[in-house]
Amino acid sequence: MTEAQLLRVVLDGLAPAVRPGHWPPGTVAPGDDAALVPAPRGGTLVSTDAMGEGTDFLHRWPAGVRTRGHDAGWKAVAQNLSDVNAMGGTASALVTALTLPPTTPLAWVRSFAAGVVGAVDRLGAPGCRVAGGDLGTGERVHAAVTVLGDPHPAGVLCRAPAPAARERVLAEGADLVHAQDAPGSSGAARSGALRPSAARPGPGWAAAGLALLLTDRDELARRAAALPPEDRPGARDLARAVRAQLRPRPPLALGPAAVEAGILTLMDVSDGLGRDAHRMAAATGAAASAEAPPPVPWIDAAWLAEAAAPLRGVAALAGVSAESLVTGGGEDYGLLGLAWPETVLPAGFVRIGRLEPAGAPAPAGHRELPEAGWDPFGG
Amino acid sequence: MTEAQLLRVVLDGLAPAVRPGHWPPGTVAPGDDAALVPAPRGGTLVSTDAMGEGTDFLHRWPAGVRTRGHDAGWKAVAQNLSDVNAMGGTASALVTALTLPPTTPLAWVRSFAAGVVGAVDRLGAPGCRVAGGDLGTGERVHAAVTVLGDPHPAGVLCRAPAPAARERVLAEGADLVHAQDAPGSSGAARSGALRPSAARPGPGWAAAGLALLLTDRDELARRAAALPPEDRPGARDLARAVRAQLRPRPPLALGPAAVEAGILTLMDVSDGLGRDAHRMAAATGAAASAEAPPPVPWIDAAWLAEAAAPLRGVAALAGVSAESLVTGGGEDYGLLGLAWPETVLPAGFVRIGRLEPAGAPAPAGHRELPEAGWDPFGG
Repeated sequence: MTEAQLLRVVLDGLAPAVRPGHWPPGTVAPGDDAALVPAPRGGTLVSTDAMGEGTDFLHRWPAGVRTRGHDAGWKAVAQNLSDVNAMGGTASALVTALTLPPTTPLAWVRSFAAGVVGAVDRLGAPGCRVAGGDLGTGERVHAAVTVLGDPHPAGVLCRAPAPAARERVLAEGADLVHAQDAPGSSGAARSGALRPSAARPGPGWAAAGLALLLTDRDELARRAAALPPEDRPGARDLARAVRAQLRPRPPLALGPAAVEAGILTLMDVSDGLGRDAHRMAAATGAAASAEAPPPVPWIDAAWLAEAAAPLRGVAALAGVSAESLVTGGGEDYGLLGLAWPETVLPAGFVRIGRLEPAGAPAPAGHRELPEAGWDPFGG
Repeated sequence: MTEAQLLRVVLDGLAPAVRPGHWPPGTVAPGDDAALVPAPRGGTLVSTDAMGEGTDFLHRWPAGVRTRGHDAGWKAVAQNLSDVNAMGGTASALVTALTLPPTTPLAWVRSFAAGVVGAVDRLGAPGCRVAGGDLGTGERVHAAVTVLGDPHPAGVLCRAPAPAARERVLAEGADLVHAQDAPGSSGAARSGALRPSAARPGPGWAAAGLALLLTDRDELARRAAALPPEDRPGARDLARAVRAQLRPRPPLALGPAAVEAGILTLMDVSDGLGRDAHRMAAATGAAASAEAPPPVPWIDAAWLAEAAAPLRGVAALAGVSAESLVTGGGEDYGLLGLAWPETVLPAGFVRIGRLEPAGAPAPAGHRELPEAGWDPFGG
């Protein structure tokens, strides 16, 4: 198979993403040295994230589940769309550098392209153009996606508050807010109700899925048999955890909504609530002074218990605690931010804790949020 | 080592690229979910290219040469800067997704960062911001770079001529033009003279370098001994070929110059003059009619002989013909385009052939340009 033939398969798979008006006069669609995408507002957001077989996913997991091309394409795109969302922006284009072993079945490549298109379409990024890519060979599948985005006209949301809000955050603290689901923009809405089981899985589910996927199938069966029947997770919860890991669903409407609502800082939760909240605290502190101790994130104990409760079954099967999944589990791609107590949050956001000045006492009903989280370099 | 520690090493290495004014108010430097780079002219060029150990480079080549981190970082960046140049644009930012085996020496990572900075600086891309990246682990080194660029205010140069020029190109043909060196913007200029030995190596040198690098050191010595002394390449030519492969030098001033001069089409030569000229011919034909046979590229026999002559020695040692290196060798990152016979070319560009309507007779002194070139999928 020549590169031209392989490219044809990929381009055919991406065809549904090429809609009229996506490439207006004056732009250049993929196929040239570079694509030319519109950047209407004077600035372009850019972020890149790569995913490698053997490190970030396995074709066949010890639990017996396969990663389809569709899953890999979906996740590679979803985690990048999430980065633009977390700046309060809207994705305008993405490019993919895809490395494939020569033995990769064509069906897998077609499925990968369908996953790219599926994520753009079903996560709600209609303005995101697939603006080209690069194909190469290697021993393992590797997908590096770069996404461009248009910033919201009202501004971008960084990990540290803008200078105008910084003094008050450092003096008074701020509410820690979180969003996982976007009512009206997701499968939950399509199904007509926002029942918990229809909503996107919350913090910890993707990490539970990873723990399950990495456990040998027979071992999972042994563990399930050893659990009291009332603690055994149902098939629906197992599928939900695995799906949260393989097909993350960042709430793309909520980044721009956060800008409009006056939320102060925003980031996506890719390495766990605790680690990412401490990063936000460190960025907030460093923006004011490199020497002073950074503010401290606290988690609302009632919220934590509520988020952990539905995870009990899968956590027991995975051999970890449900609460550590919520505070330490990564790859959820929800949104974490700071807001004033008086700010009216957009639908989908909830208050989950507080950021307090270093040395301030624990807010009532709160626990310190541990920093533990995922580090790909094992540190 | 934690990700934070490794990141520190990379960021320290990139520090020379962070200059005052690069991140003006309203932009966001790397370190957040995404960077926000200025896009002053309403559109953004975007392109991505990846490089993998084992496929695109070897840490230690059979010829005994090592690929330093500096070489890998330089080339990953150079081939991307070349894509923006080939659209007539100016690079504004780049991001890198870098995958490293856990055993990679820190010195190699530092050297990679220095290569990124070195290419941006010494190839002449002062406006190109290093806008972030992604670090991951894997079995092999893999670097996927995405570059953004500002289009020239006067327009972009694609592989097919703009509609206004298309009819005349199809009826009358056009001159095939090529640029490898930019007088006044390169090491050649710094050395004070544009002697051939000081100029950037022309088409075929990078492919010669690859052929030499892939040949066992002892075999190279045997072959050299078997050559008549007058055919044996000198050490300077060997170093030049290897350097052309490991450290390509796209002429970044010449893309924008081509727009200003009224050149009609432009692309960078990454897969060989012949293959890329046929791609340009096919794009030109397809833009007018999907059924009619595309126009045909012809190469000036005198130019070809002149380009091949200095390659005789390294070609003999590599066991290939010098002319096939010139017409089929890839990774030179020169510029190939079409121009009217009456167009005054910018310094650095030369006329190397003709594009003629299908069925037209051979232009005097020209040979058909074979399509042979490099295909990573071996087709």
